[in-house]
Amino acid sequence: MESLQFDKGNGLVPAIVQDYESGDILMLAYINREAWEKTVATGKAHYWSRSRNTLWLKGETSGHVQIVKEILVDCDEDTVVFKVEQIGGAACHKGFRSCFFRRFDKGVFKVKDEPVFDPGEVYKK
Amino acid sequence: MESLQFDKGNGLVPAIVQDYESGDILMLAYINREAWEKTVATGKAHYWSRSRNTLWLKGETSGHVQIVKEILVDCDEDTVVFKVEQIGGAACHKGFRSCFFRRFDKGVFKVKDEPVFDPGEVYKK
Repeated sequence: MESLQFDKGNGLVPAIVQDYESGDILMLAYINREAWEKTVATGKAHYWSRSRNTLWLKGETSGHVQIVKEILVDCDEDTVVFKVEQIGGAACHKGFRSCFFRRFDKGVFKVKDEPVFDPGEVYKK
Repeated sequence: MESLQFDKGNGLVPAIVQDYESGDILMLAYINREAWEKTVATGKAHYWSRSRNTLWLKGETSGHVQIVKEILVDCDEDTVVFKVEQIGGAACHKGFRSCFFRRFDKGVFKVKDEPVFDPGEVYKK
């Protein structure tokens, strides 16, 4: 199986996550070799959490898993695009469909989207 | 003017570059504070080249500049999306419209797109 240039980025490669139907960009996350192999093997997006230092099945807590429909690879083999079906309709832990819910507008970041869930409800202690 | 969390990534923030009409992802590049400010001031995408260690006006050599139509900011303020009009129709130095011209298919990277220019012609010595 062909693999990616993990060594260039200290073992990590950024994954751009795009809605496979709308083309909206949902988030950017990072994968290591294990996350890459698990994603390919299971068809569900796995990432490496840089803050928690652990492999992470997206949606493990929220149930909002990402079914990977297509994987694109860039010219340098150090970035991928995951085209996904976002279960639950929301990729962002802040309750928005996309992590990119703000627009840079006249010098400030303005919220442009509506939240689709209440993070307080989904991530109960 | 609001800014980004450049300190988290050693002064750099990834910029996902998306065609503002088709929604296709063209490339991933990196910006530092100076590239961010020049992009905002000029409306043309500027990046930080990690290989050449220099500020870089995309299209400086090829003429294939990117007119920035919209900027989106993520929840952590450490990633942006530049929605651009790609002049010349090609973002990739290998002559393809998008750097993501290959698909991961049954374990191998397969070219899925047609090149739109000949890099040998555009990047003459």
